[in-house]
Amino acid sequence: MRDAIGRPDRANRGGTAISVSDAGEFGLIARIVARLGGDRADGVLIGPGDDAAVVAAPDARVVVTTDLVVEGRHFRRDWSSAYDVGRRAAARSLADVCAMGARPTAIVVGLAAPPDLPLEWADGLADGLRDECASVGASVVGGDVSAADHVTLAVTALGDLGGRDPIRRAGARPGDVVVVAGRLGHAAAGLALLAAGHADDALAAAHRRPSVAYAAAWRLAEAGATAMVDVSDGLVADLGHVAAASGVGIELATDDLPLPAELVEAGLALGVDPLGWVAGGGDDHAFAATMPGDAALRAVTLLADLPEPVPFAQVGRVIDGAGVTFVDAPPPGAGGHDHFRA
Amino acid sequence: MRDAIGRPDRANRGGTAISVSDAGEFGLIARIVARLGGDRADGVLIGPGDDAAVVAAPDARVVVTTDLVVEGRHFRRDWSSAYDVGRRAAARSLADVCAMGARPTAIVVGLAAPPDLPLEWADGLADGLRDECASVGASVVGGDVSAADHVTLAVTALGDLGGRDPIRRAGARPGDVVVVAGRLGHAAAGLALLAAGHADDALAAAHRRPSVAYAAAWRLAEAGATAMVDVSDGLVADLGHVAAASGVGIELATDDLPLPAELVEAGLALGVDPLGWVAGGGDDHAFAATMPGDAALRAVTLLADLPEPVPFAQVGRVIDGAGVTFVDAPPPGAGGHDHFRA
Repeated sequence: MRDAIGRPDRANRGGTAISVSDAGEFGLIARIVARLGGDRADGVLIGPGDDAAVVAAPDARVVVTTDLVVEGRHFRRDWSSAYDVGRRAAARSLADVCAMGARPTAIVVGLAAPPDLPLEWADGLADGLRDECASVGASVVGGDVSAADHVTLAVTALGDLGGRDPIRRAGARPGDVVVVAGRLGHAAAGLALLAAGHADDALAAAHRRPSVAYAAAWRLAEAGATAMVDVSDGLVADLGHVAAASGVGIELATDDLPLPAELVEAGLALGVDPLGWVAGGGDDHAFAATMPGDAALRAVTLLADLPEPVPFAQVGRVIDGAGVTFVDAPPPGAGGHDHFRA
Repeated sequence: MRDAIGRPDRANRGGTAISVSDAGEFGLIARIVARLGGDRADGVLIGPGDDAAVVAAPDARVVVTTDLVVEGRHFRRDWSSAYDVGRRAAARSLADVCAMGARPTAIVVGLAAPPDLPLEWADGLADGLRDECASVGASVVGGDVSAADHVTLAVTALGDLGGRDPIRRAGARPGDVVVVAGRLGHAAAGLALLAAGHADDALAAAHRRPSVAYAAAWRLAEAGATAMVDVSDGLVADLGHVAAASGVGIELATDDLPLPAELVEAGLALGVDPLGWVAGGGDDHAFAATMPGDAALRAVTLLADLPEPVPFAQVGRVIDGAGVTFVDAPPPGAGGHDHFRA
């Protein structure tokens, strides 16, 4: 009887798809937990099914971050598969943990869903959450479900620092260089292509499911990053957070921003300047860091050791001052996105 | 530009209330963080404002749980103040941590909100989250905001076991007694009164803001609880989880269920059997535990030491078998609530 405000009528559907309301709250939970599999990482001491999970925190400090992913704001069910939504939702939080220089250990997930959501959509979501976690050595250890009008996901990720100092936003020092590891602008270009009806473009996949170079964050930390952030609001906006937290200015060069051929082609196809995606697009979860010049050289070497090549660029430098400025013509749309402003 | 699917138009409002869209995403975050105050607990190593927070986990294990609170499902803005919604949302997760026998250390909060939500509603919410955390020695250490059609809160709580074994649902043994510490049925009665237009009844406050006896959970653990759960789905439903996890049966006596005078009065006023609220109502977050009879006597002594008296009752016993049964006539509505079923 609890929470019995405004209960939805069970949906009348023409089709035969089994919905989450057919399964019921506990049926849905059991189904999701079954898909998560028993092969959780060693550090999961108590997994799903109790009042709370218990996860090893060998460092005696735990890194924690939470992110929301809302249908109609962050994804559309007709543009992204449930599996991709799951991978992307997990990636957002896992990338934040890595941006502190930590290793993700576990996530917990809140899923609010319409009662007529097909049960197989929830299956795909669980698979995506599980696989993205597994790609970085973490596990899904718990969650909660509720009815709602739209799918809303809340993913909280935990991580372990392994005895290292966390890399904060506040450590940038004048004289440091600004580097980026990972892709910039691909997800934003993919979203623009989807909106224009180009659902089959390879860049559309970058919107649906980012390919996050988690290990690059650990290499940047190891190289000696003084500040680090994952690019989720857009490069210029996120470096603005670093500048503000560190009490410094950051000077970028538009000419130094990486502009791969596929973004140029997408820009030509859509008639827009692709540098706007590179400077203002989030959701690729590249890692931007500041560090002394010799550390940046070390970073190049360390990144070269990774099994998959990771794009790396030096895009600017830390100066006395405030905010993010450009030494040349600033790219368009560099301000990033505000969730509450149209 | 990220997440730029379906951006809402900025609301046209007749009144002069400042909304969250007026403040913008980063203005809203700054406003909330300012209200959380700097007086965070000692264990908060990095609070809000970075990619992730860092919290002490001295036990080298961390307890983690997440819960959703959805407008129109768990609360109505015309029935509950923002402050009460904040306290209640925090309480749900904090109680889960305590039900493992752990001490809450921190929460992170995802807030999805309509762009026209008054900014002062967000203020009240932040105050409520902060104060409920402070009541149990925890802090709000981070969060995320997004636009959405309805207010949705996702609260993830962390806790520390302090070297003790977690109290699971799976430890109940035949011969144990079943005890409950805390109130049962008050929130459910309050919701029924609100739905019937009795907004001023004292029980309505129990729906708006539960008064959770967190310390009672620690005393039950200390006394020797073999299994413990916080009553969030309803006593019978939650004891059903304990029975299933432990591979035992639980035998209750309706005659032993606590039935305070105010619930009897509310039942008379509404023409319903108040035992339904006691057996099936969640949201008061009482703690139900199983333990040997001598441990239950210890629990009585330990609970008597608490500064505030906590209702305590022995309601049944653990038997060989399966499921929850009654030795006498079962109360109505004992099945609890399913979020996806009307």
